[in-house]
Amino acid sequence: MAKMTPRTLSGFMELLPAPQQQMERIMEVLRRTYSLYGFTPLDTPVIESSDVLLAKGGGETEKQIYRFQKGDADIALRFDLTVPLAKYVALHYNDLTFPFRRYQIGKVYRGERAQRGRFREFYQADIDIIGDGKLDIANEAEIPAIIYKTFSTLGLKRFQIRVNNRKILNGFYSMLGLSEKSGDIMRTVDKLDKIGPEKVKTLLMGEEIALTEEQADEILKFIAIGGTNAQVLDALQGYAGKDEIFDQGLSELQTVVKYLAAFGVPEENFAVDLTIARGLDYYTGTVYETTLLDHPEIGSVCSGGRYDNLAEYYTDKKLPGVGISIGLTRLFYVLGEQGMLNPELPTAPADVLILPMTEDLSAAISLATLLRENGIRAQLHCEQKKFKQKISYADKLNIPYVIFLGEDEINAGVVACKDMVTGEQTKLEPAATVYRIKAGLDARNTGSVILG
Amino acid sequence: MAKMTPRTLSGFMELLPAPQQQMERIMEVLRRTYSLYGFTPLDTPVIESSDVLLAKGGGETEKQIYRFQKGDADIALRFDLTVPLAKYVALHYNDLTFPFRRYQIGKVYRGERAQRGRFREFYQADIDIIGDGKLDIANEAEIPAIIYKTFSTLGLKRFQIRVNNRKILNGFYSMLGLSEKSGDIMRTVDKLDKIGPEKVKTLLMGEEIALTEEQADEILKFIAIGGTNAQVLDALQGYAGKDEIFDQGLSELQTVVKYLAAFGVPEENFAVDLTIARGLDYYTGTVYETTLLDHPEIGSVCSGGRYDNLAEYYTDKKLPGVGISIGLTRLFYVLGEQGMLNPELPTAPADVLILPMTEDLSAAISLATLLRENGIRAQLHCEQKKFKQKISYADKLNIPYVIFLGEDEINAGVVACKDMVTGEQTKLEPAATVYRIKAGLDARNTGSVILG
Repeated sequence: MAKMTPRTLSGFMELLPAPQQQMERIMEVLRRTYSLYGFTPLDTPVIESSDVLLAKGGGETEKQIYRFQKGDADIALRFDLTVPLAKYVALHYNDLTFPFRRYQIGKVYRGERAQRGRFREFYQADIDIIGDGKLDIANEAEIPAIIYKTFSTLGLKRFQIRVNNRKILNGFYSMLGLSEKSGDIMRTVDKLDKIGPEKVKTLLMGEEIALTEEQADEILKFIAIGGTNAQVLDALQGYAGKDEIFDQGLSELQTVVKYLAAFGVPEENFAVDLTIARGLDYYTGTVYETTLLDHPEIGSVCSGGRYDNLAEYYTDKKLPGVGISIGLTRLFYVLGEQGMLNPELPTAPADVLILPMTEDLSAAISLATLLRENGIRAQLHCEQKKFKQKISYADKLNIPYVIFLGEDEINAGVVACKDMVTGEQTKLEPAATVYRIKAGLDARNTGSVILG
Repeated sequence: MAKMTPRTLSGFMELLPAPQQQMERIMEVLRRTYSLYGFTPLDTPVIESSDVLLAKGGGETEKQIYRFQKGDADIALRFDLTVPLAKYVALHYNDLTFPFRRYQIGKVYRGERAQRGRFREFYQADIDIIGDGKLDIANEAEIPAIIYKTFSTLGLKRFQIRVNNRKILNGFYSMLGLSEKSGDIMRTVDKLDKIGPEKVKTLLMGEEIALTEEQADEILKFIAIGGTNAQVLDALQGYAGKDEIFDQGLSELQTVVKYLAAFGVPEENFAVDLTIARGLDYYTGTVYETTLLDHPEIGSVCSGGRYDNLAEYYTDKKLPGVGISIGLTRLFYVLGEQGMLNPELPTAPADVLILPMTEDLSAAISLATLLRENGIRAQLHCEQKKFKQKISYADKLNIPYVIFLGEDEINAGVVACKDMVTGEQTKLEPAATVYRIKAGLDARNTGSVILG
């Protein structure tokens, strides 16, 4: 028979079992952490009607979307988890209780040009808090606190959540009489990290935005404000009293910074950064970006912000919210590339491999049942293979313990158990063996998923 | 602005938060149980190249598949998890260690005619064990034992795993000189439950299959063999010694039944059933179907079997295996319809709602942190709302505990905590409050997801 060459589409991540175990571990940390903060899990369809998904319309989105016809239906794959959330909240409004806190970890699809480290199918891990009519500023401080907790639990240390407030920027541009140009200016300033201040100035004074040199200098001076969070807030105080929106933004930012400290987020892990604007017009208050301090070249691994109107394309109801999204597949890829995934953590499919040495498997099966009842992942190896091959199987899969169960052991009521790392072998009663294995597994499981 | 009416496509399940929590709980049980038996989690792309996905080609599959063009690529959404597994194993053959045990819980897509309880996007939860060249019969007994364990852990009691062996059927048809017609016969016999023995007989003697009445009667007599598993095996023994394949199948079935008992599967939860054949030619040995005893009308909720050649369309390597698949979305739907989802289990997004009664949130935040560190899901309610509205929020979401934290409590170093079910209110130190809440949550979490 002619064979079809098996292949996976480029831009689609497909992991081998060991890295997949690491990915599962990360997802489990996300689920658990988000749950601890009162977020409920949500799962929405991957496919939606195209008109629903593209209600906002236009832009890059439409070009990248996977959209197709099935029968009479014009349907498409979701390209983020925010539009499905907006649809969900508008559709189920009467069945939800607000503030509505949900997390969703799911695959999204974008037909980007395939290149190294860019994915067409990737996981996003989102949390959002949606209010009905209004939403307290405290939520804008809790969101980065959750991200801090999540990354810390994963083991990440050298990261920084950078925080700004769009009202400060809008208010400041209003002071300069540049309100109408604020969108263009923010998009340009957003490039600061990549192209530097000189080129930003040139763009600001270019044909399109057409600022005076004085205005451009004012802006560059403003976004150059740096130092500790207290110093930045002090410097901003110098601009206060001139614009209502600015003052409101400053007050919000002060509150967020105060509560972030109360939430136990260390200074080194968050910074007020006036250059952060987020490209989307959608954001109206606090905005976030998160960078890995040793890998700024990756850009933001977790971004979001406050918006005033989640579902304006579907409903007249005003639904303000705040949310943040981790680009999980890309983050995982980068962590792998940088050797930051802890190789010490178990990635074997089982904790124990049981080698029955008798024809009758009953004793081996009973032992496997005992181990499993104690939460130990046990695999029976019943294949007709040589002993050496079976040991090599455990070796290749990094299964930490191998148990031999022969006539002698069964008659003596003991279990021969070998630690595959130390080589140490014990002959103990089943209960004592369980105890020893559990202690060993606990010791192996102490590290975090991410190193550094 | 004109609004787009939000809607979800028909045939796509989208759950409200409370049932979603139940679904998550079921998935968690599946993941944990499968892991305990040494299965490693796998995640493959939802989209594959159409030629890869349809390598086997033809049939119902091709009509139902979501297939489309993106740029130059002819791509499609997976319609099961078996074809992606075959591709995965063939593609990554050199990086895998055999026997390879994997589980996968993922969405698959079939453009079926939309009807109540039928889904176009649905979860399958699969386990498979793949051998390299050969695979021991013990695996064919372990698979239904895992399903028994999974369903029991979920709380399901009234279910039956029905087991047969294709070799017994093939061998039996061979005795009758009907080997070439065995596929047609099995597909017809498979309808027994639905259409009854008389109609099966008519079909067997019809133009297409054209058996003699004697042959048809022999077959009906054979598949009518019933009773306890021991009785069925005894009756089958009467046919032994006439056909090698039959004898091999009988021996395998005897082994499977013996080990199922060793695995602790009670007689009432599995039955040798000679009418089970599974439509697919793909299966070559043991086959399984699982029915809910009180809802036979649903058909099988978990099916599978032994196959000789997982990846024959991709590789010359012989990769025998055995696997089983739970149609999770449909099962969940049915359980909900039948009122079998335990309403006593917590579905709230949080265990505790904290109501800060002071301007400064620091004390409330510290308390929330303490609760979370103790594994208690805590939500801060900081909205500017009336006290009564906040209580009503906890009520609507079924949050079991509400904590009030005012100036008095903060100064006294205590926490006022109300049990929302009993109405009982305590004022205790934070540590004692944690203890009380944990005990209460443990008591609430004792039931299983499924009733009956």
